[in-house]
Amino acid sequence: MTKFSEIDRLAISTIRLLAVDEVSTANSGHPGAPLGLAPAAHVLFRQLKFNPKNPEWINRDRFVLSNGHAVALLYAMLYLSGYDFTLDDLKKFRQLGSKTPGHPEFELPGVEVTTGPLGQGICNAVGLAIAQANFAAKYNKPGYTLSDSYTFAFLGDGCLQEGVSSEASSLAGHLQLGNLIAIHDDNKITIDGPTSYSFTEDVAKRYESYGWEVLYVENGDSNLEAIAEALEQAKQSKNKPTLIQLRTTIGFGSLNEGTSSVHGSPLKPDDVKQLKKSFGFNPEESFVVPQEVYDFYNKSIIEPGTKANQEWDALFAKYSSNFPELGAEVSRRLEGKLPSGWESALPTYTPGDSAVASRKLSEIVLSKIFDNIPELIGGSADLSPSNLTRVSDAVDFQPKSTGLGDYSGRYIRYGVREHGMGAIMNGISAFGANFRPYGGTFLNFVSYAAGAVRLAALSGHPVIWVATHDSIGLGEDGPTHQPIETLAHFRALPNIQVWRPADGNEVSAAYKVALESKHTPSIIALSRQNLPQLEGSSIEKAAKGGYVLKNPSGAAPDLILVSTGSEVGIVVEAAKKLESTKSLKVRVVSLPDFHTFGLQSKEYKLSVFPDGVPILSVEVLSTFGWSKYAHESFGLDRFGASGKGPAIYEHFGFTPSGIAEKAEKVVAFYKGKKIISPVNKAL
Amino acid sequence: MTKFSEIDRLAISTIRLLAVDEVSTANSGHPGAPLGLAPAAHVLFRQLKFNPKNPEWINRDRFVLSNGHAVALLYAMLYLSGYDFTLDDLKKFRQLGSKTPGHPEFELPGVEVTTGPLGQGICNAVGLAIAQANFAAKYNKPGYTLSDSYTFAFLGDGCLQEGVSSEASSLAGHLQLGNLIAIHDDNKITIDGPTSYSFTEDVAKRYESYGWEVLYVENGDSNLEAIAEALEQAKQSKNKPTLIQLRTTIGFGSLNEGTSSVHGSPLKPDDVKQLKKSFGFNPEESFVVPQEVYDFYNKSIIEPGTKANQEWDALFAKYSSNFPELGAEVSRRLEGKLPSGWESALPTYTPGDSAVASRKLSEIVLSKIFDNIPELIGGSADLSPSNLTRVSDAVDFQPKSTGLGDYSGRYIRYGVREHGMGAIMNGISAFGANFRPYGGTFLNFVSYAAGAVRLAALSGHPVIWVATHDSIGLGEDGPTHQPIETLAHFRALPNIQVWRPADGNEVSAAYKVALESKHTPSIIALSRQNLPQLEGSSIEKAAKGGYVLKNPSGAAPDLILVSTGSEVGIVVEAAKKLESTKSLKVRVVSLPDFHTFGLQSKEYKLSVFPDGVPILSVEVLSTFGWSKYAHESFGLDRFGASGKGPAIYEHFGFTPSGIAEKAEKVVAFYKGKKIISPVNKAL
Repeated sequence: MTKFSEIDRLAISTIRLLAVDEVSTANSGHPGAPLGLAPAAHVLFRQLKFNPKNPEWINRDRFVLSNGHAVALLYAMLYLSGYDFTLDDLKKFRQLGSKTPGHPEFELPGVEVTTGPLGQGICNAVGLAIAQANFAAKYNKPGYTLSDSYTFAFLGDGCLQEGVSSEASSLAGHLQLGNLIAIHDDNKITIDGPTSYSFTEDVAKRYESYGWEVLYVENGDSNLEAIAEALEQAKQSKNKPTLIQLRTTIGFGSLNEGTSSVHGSPLKPDDVKQLKKSFGFNPEESFVVPQEVYDFYNKSIIEPGTKANQEWDALFAKYSSNFPELGAEVSRRLEGKLPSGWESALPTYTPGDSAVASRKLSEIVLSKIFDNIPELIGGSADLSPSNLTRVSDAVDFQPKSTGLGDYSGRYIRYGVREHGMGAIMNGISAFGANFRPYGGTFLNFVSYAAGAVRLAALSGHPVIWVATHDSIGLGEDGPTHQPIETLAHFRALPNIQVWRPADGNEVSAAYKVALESKHTPSIIALSRQNLPQLEGSSIEKAAKGGYVLKNPSGAAPDLILVSTGSEVGIVVEAAKKLESTKSLKVRVVSLPDFHTFGLQSKEYKLSVFPDGVPILSVEVLSTFGWSKYAHESFGLDRFGASGKGPAIYEHFGFTPSGIAEKAEKVVAFYKGKKIISPVNKAL
Repeated sequence: MTKFSEIDRLAISTIRLLAVDEVSTANSGHPGAPLGLAPAAHVLFRQLKFNPKNPEWINRDRFVLSNGHAVALLYAMLYLSGYDFTLDDLKKFRQLGSKTPGHPEFELPGVEVTTGPLGQGICNAVGLAIAQANFAAKYNKPGYTLSDSYTFAFLGDGCLQEGVSSEASSLAGHLQLGNLIAIHDDNKITIDGPTSYSFTEDVAKRYESYGWEVLYVENGDSNLEAIAEALEQAKQSKNKPTLIQLRTTIGFGSLNEGTSSVHGSPLKPDDVKQLKKSFGFNPEESFVVPQEVYDFYNKSIIEPGTKANQEWDALFAKYSSNFPELGAEVSRRLEGKLPSGWESALPTYTPGDSAVASRKLSEIVLSKIFDNIPELIGGSADLSPSNLTRVSDAVDFQPKSTGLGDYSGRYIRYGVREHGMGAIMNGISAFGANFRPYGGTFLNFVSYAAGAVRLAALSGHPVIWVATHDSIGLGEDGPTHQPIETLAHFRALPNIQVWRPADGNEVSAAYKVALESKHTPSIIALSRQNLPQLEGSSIEKAAKGGYVLKNPSGAAPDLILVSTGSEVGIVVEAAKKLESTKSLKVRVVSLPDFHTFGLQSKEYKLSVFPDGVPILSVEVLSTFGWSKYAHESFGLDRFGASGKGPAIYEHFGFTPSGIAEKAEKVVAFYKGKKIISPVNKAL
């Protein structure tokens, strides 16, 4: 059992005051939680396994600050623990361009996941714990424990109130993740005031109902032994995640401790002074770290961590010579490389091949690549038979005792928990080892997970959403299930691919680009209904995000029809009709992903959408945003309807003749007008 | 205590077979849950208080089918209970244009809320219960119980797995909503298979931890007495909502009962036949309702309900003469009318007035109208001091015993539960009595509630989201909190106003249009930073959604700058700069709401955006969708940054000179080109 002494108390005061100084200097931020949580952070870091000079070491313990607004505490900890931060960085807290932004960001050294939006971090922690369990189950060998790290998370009342954390916590209990330890900063205060205003549930009982071990620390402000003991006990809980309820005082030591006024505003100068005085520091000095605190952190934290990393390196070298294949696989994964030649397994199609629903085409891709890419780890939010995300020989990721699978399994039964799934996938990706999670749900319900999708894009977690039932084409389930705004929503989000492939080659292209992306997540929107294999498609062309599928023979086109997914085949028929009955020359463009197309050169984009030709987009969803690539849009700026898929398409006019009718109007309207291509821009 | 006999069993068999016939005739839908839940539905409807000929009767009991996929059951119940459905409607289940779509839709008689997206219905039920408690607290008088109705909900395992239901259920326990009774269809099956795959938590214990009463019915398939007893006991639970765990067999009676295969696919014809036979029905007949079942429903359900409604009408007439003011208020609310002249309280501003943050302007509006509109019921997801949603003399909606407020209070402390708040607001609105809920959070976190916002738009619940901190202008909290895609997301959603007002007059206009909308929800995006009062703005002009704020003197404009919210003031400065230093004639258009502007005549829109003039949009969020109204866009197609708000604006070039620079490029690019207005379209 760790012993604590004066140096620990001095270190804790140092941490508290560093955080307070950060917030005061910035004149912005959250001093309350750092003051309350500094003791827990210090005790935790004293037994956390990491090497600050190698923040990517795969067997480090992970620490997630789910209450990301307490980031001033995290920066203080990372600085003292030897990560690549300087005191100067801390002094620039929350300033533009500094290394210490207002919430933790994934790309910073020692920051495991981006947090701030409440509830996400604890779910990421569940993902990290799943990844660790899977990695260990796959690669550990007797005498060669490559992976035995823990995931720790701090979370506040806000995180516990968010539904997303309920979803992931319930699943974590089901999965018996003993490697997950969460510390609830039970300070009884939220922004509005005391938790008695809105949050009077029995949190401990709730977590027990999920199958967690729940421990208590009555005095988290100063009882370091009790904190250490709880952590130790939590580590012994092998088949249950642990929640430690840590009673703390928000803004500990400040004049307004224990109230909401210390949550999110800097302390007043006088308050800072009395705080420093009461902690035995000079009230006139800021950002003070006593040398003995540096020494202590060096000796007790940095050196043991560095040594542990070195020992692991030696172990892994021996492992690699005893298990050369697995060793090479681990090395490859640690380098973030996919197995070479993996993409040769991607299926290709010719127009003679039969029409297939793109959700089924997605299943075919997954079944071809699943065995060869051990870092693929799939799942679905309880729609496996509809999303077709589970390849037939997949093993479920389950505790062995359930008889339903084991931790080496790579298919996760997420339950009806889309948002939790999204945040867990982000955590799995953040673990490293090239983990590539994918998860299925209906496209319309990716919106439930908007918070997690946004963080994937912001953090650059290249997770893949397998989003089936992507339009009114799903039919009878009706408008509650038919996406309208969904593609526009995610197309407007930076750094995310939003694929809507039109046939088999395009589905393969979507997976190819998505999997080759190291820092960009993807949504792949897939149909329930069968789609024909198109003349003119190829993986190579579709991998550009947009391309000319069909050109009129001879002269320049009178019209360009641009479309995506299930409408491309109908548009091809419309183009034929316009050519044969109206002698119009029509180019058809397939644009499966706006994001990837947007990355192409202006020359290429102009070659697809040249000046002088009117462009009509056709997609059975909101037209919003289509004016980026089209002069006119035919879409669905209303909610859908319940009925048979083909009947709904007919009803709204998405048929070859319905489209041809719109097309004729467009050609007539633009006749004689000087037309500028929508990709030909001043800015 | 209700007694049950053979007629009840016959009615239940009738209901089961009606549902099965609906699904079979449609060859689409979910037979499993209706077969399992028919007994509970029958027992519940036997004691439910409603008048099928007056589905809007304010003191009816509400029934919410949170597992909306079991809708075939609901249609059967509504049909037998005398609502405006025919057998023919049931025969057209899930057909295009029928009155029986694939999930329950709000506008149908007897359908209290639209359900299908899991988890929402139970939260709506919490909102209905809040509304009832508030309505009763406000209007009931000794001897005049105008309101004492209950809200009942069925929910499945899927609803319980969704985080949104956790949020609302925790709050319902805190609020001690004794008028809320939920029945968990505990059938142990989800789409993926047995709940043991992903959902092994102790649901009863969890609901107890929220402060609910939990009751059990061991045999929900046939023990009608036990179901009735549980309902009776639940009604006695005055200070706690009740969850009844009802053990049922999914697909009861079918050959595959108790498995996931009966969840979402029609039964095979042979299975239907054996089912009918075993229930004593002719296997060759469909949609059979024995006359005695009609008679029984008439006598036991329809007649008592109609009578109760008549008695209530008489009571209300007496009430109105004894309490004329309150009576008139109730009548007005039941007619769905706001107090006449309410809008005269809306503040107006002139350019001489000081610069104010629009979140503060919103607070001023609320404080002016809150007392005069008793149907306004506000709240915030734990950001009251930031969203400024709580007017100073508001009373909290809280159980009286807490000492924090009472049920007549109209300010709800939602806690950090954005999605729950959204779904609860939808339920409050669905109660009727003209309830107008509004709820605050940061704009970026409205995305957490995307599922509920979508249902507000689809159902036409005119709720108002007070969405502050609407851009990078929020400053130091950084990219995790700064919306980028959010406005585009909701602008792409049908039937929703997305306001981003530029000054005080525009804030008043946003509230005016939002509150006058009977079937359209709104999001009002508001700034953290101060905004100047603009020359040229007015409530009347802004209420058109977009208008010419400033025209160049003399000749036609060389350029139109269109903008929203906090950027409009900067754009006005840019326009002045361009006029004074470059002699460019610049029109400035303010476009606070795309939706409302889109409803104006083409002539009006062309008067704002005429042919022949290049248009540049300026908004510090995603440019996606702006090409609808602009040829060129200056925005932020990347994530934001942590720093002081003004520094970030400067950094990204959103300053008068930064905008002027872009504007010059645009003018140069379009010089000599024939320019078509983006609102001048063929389609």
